[in-house]
Amino acid sequence: MIIDCHGHYTTEPAAFMAYRKAQIAHYEDSASPAPKLAAISDDEIRESVENNQLRALKDRGCDMTIFSPRASGMGHHVGDLAMSQDWTRKSNDMIHRVTQIFPDNFIGVCQLPQSVGVSIENSIEELERCVLELGFVGCNLNPDPTGGMWTEKPLTDPCWYPFFEKMVELDVPAMIHVSGCCNPNFHMTGAHYINADTTAFVQFLQGDLFSDFPDLKLIIPHGGGAVPYHWGRYRGLADMMGKPPLTEHIMRNVYFDTCVYHQPGIDLLFKVIDVDNILFASEMFGAVKGIDSQTGYYFDDTKRYVDALDLSEDERSKVFEGNARRVYPRLDATLKARGL
Amino acid sequence: MIIDCHGHYTTEPAAFMAYRKAQIAHYEDSASPAPKLAAISDDEIRESVENNQLRALKDRGCDMTIFSPRASGMGHHVGDLAMSQDWTRKSNDMIHRVTQIFPDNFIGVCQLPQSVGVSIENSIEELERCVLELGFVGCNLNPDPTGGMWTEKPLTDPCWYPFFEKMVELDVPAMIHVSGCCNPNFHMTGAHYINADTTAFVQFLQGDLFSDFPDLKLIIPHGGGAVPYHWGRYRGLADMMGKPPLTEHIMRNVYFDTCVYHQPGIDLLFKVIDVDNILFASEMFGAVKGIDSQTGYYFDDTKRYVDALDLSEDERSKVFEGNARRVYPRLDATLKARGL
Repeated sequence: MIIDCHGHYTTEPAAFMAYRKAQIAHYEDSASPAPKLAAISDDEIRESVENNQLRALKDRGCDMTIFSPRASGMGHHVGDLAMSQDWTRKSNDMIHRVTQIFPDNFIGVCQLPQSVGVSIENSIEELERCVLELGFVGCNLNPDPTGGMWTEKPLTDPCWYPFFEKMVELDVPAMIHVSGCCNPNFHMTGAHYINADTTAFVQFLQGDLFSDFPDLKLIIPHGGGAVPYHWGRYRGLADMMGKPPLTEHIMRNVYFDTCVYHQPGIDLLFKVIDVDNILFASEMFGAVKGIDSQTGYYFDDTKRYVDALDLSEDERSKVFEGNARRVYPRLDATLKARGL
Repeated sequence: MIIDCHGHYTTEPAAFMAYRKAQIAHYEDSASPAPKLAAISDDEIRESVENNQLRALKDRGCDMTIFSPRASGMGHHVGDLAMSQDWTRKSNDMIHRVTQIFPDNFIGVCQLPQSVGVSIENSIEELERCVLELGFVGCNLNPDPTGGMWTEKPLTDPCWYPFFEKMVELDVPAMIHVSGCCNPNFHMTGAHYINADTTAFVQFLQGDLFSDFPDLKLIIPHGGGAVPYHWGRYRGLADMMGKPPLTEHIMRNVYFDTCVYHQPGIDLLFKVIDVDNILFASEMFGAVKGIDSQTGYYFDDTKRYVDALDLSEDERSKVFEGNARRVYPRLDATLKARGL
């Protein structure tokens, strides 16, 4: 089967987005009415997914998406902890409903109630709820809850450790994924996303996180940011810093997805990164929604690029299924329980 | 001839670095003695370059380096405008001395006296001094003088325009190059440099800078950051934003260098970026100084990677010489005056 490890619910029913809008308005001005989430029927959810992500999934010959709330919508830099907790819980509940309606095609990954200046320990409860009660198989961890101001601590700082301990205990990975950006220097999906991917990798390069957490699993999306293109630079820096080779120092714990939207980029990714560290993904529907006039196909139809590679059957199987089942053990267990 | 468009004076005489150290100490604590630059002889400068950059230049079969002060040393986030002006002037004077001692091998590009919260207009005088009096052919423009805090305006903001006007008037390009980083999230050469390259490109993508300045020429170093690897993403974003194709919207004014330290990266760069937009460079000696155990050669010996490409004579000539002479017209004029 073919598993896409990176999809967001970017086609939410209007009532859900209206709730968020009202929530922010109320936070900014208490005279604005308190937010109230209108009833959203299963049919509305079904329709929002059926004609969008599910149709594209099937059209492109894929089977399942590891599905999480809209990344740009997490908005950890907006409001306070209570607001983030409320919004996060509701966002994850929406994902849960999608996975209940389409259990064969969607499995959940949760947003976390991160908030500026608030300990990541406050996110443990929601992670446990999503994994233990809602059947989710991972989480999206925001390395910069400030939304582009980058005033908090690197991922290798011990302040993150209680959360990593819980992840290892629950046996779930995190995708390192920023949210919206309030810094006018950084375009969200063009600069902030890609910079955050590169930044996280270099934090791991400088630090020794995986000596402390040999079982921690992290996915860096968008093909690893700039990392594969500058693989020589990072091998050289590791050497200068007296670190072990990247394959030992980082790549036993870190995986890149295939959200790279042209053939030469995917070619490079597979040339420099071991196939065991690459997870198929499209980020559908995410940053780039259009059709590439040079190919006539959607930019984010990344399966076409992977199909065009000269991979053995074993390698294909790893990229499309095996690696995802290994990195998300709870996904594997769920599929096995279904005889898959 | 073979021109390396990106080299820094990272082997400065000890007395010069001692001056900077004293300058910072005095700024931080006025009880610390006022800095005084000890005399530095031509022999000291000769020696600092001869056995380092010049030897590597010759060993690698190159002829000339477009040479500027140590990028990490610019330190625009340290101290105030007066301090930045003093340090910048002295740094550029050192480059000038190198170019006087080795006129056949080094030509100058200047640092600018940028400073946090200070208008870029204050950098015009030093640009004019360097270009009109010292024979420099370009400048390094820091898109983030805050050193990784990114609290100033994007390069497309009109506050930068007076400087761009002067660049066009003087017919000199700028390399977009950040300096040291005081944000613990970003490793300087691993994350901050590469992120800044990507960030600048996406600012140009969002804006319309080159409609206002059709003759402005900017070089994005380090192979354009993450851009070539994510070329499909950026083509798709341009499309979504209703911008012209990147080739028209940005690539009539923007150039990438070849500071990418492995063969697959260079292969990708030349696959997706037009050869007219690529300038040979090594950043010698910069971020990565070691030998690649996989090849037995220096990571930053980028000429080897370019030599390994299947380029026509015309393409080789553009990358190694022609493009640099076109992008740095004052370099071309200097060489022509020498009959080259």
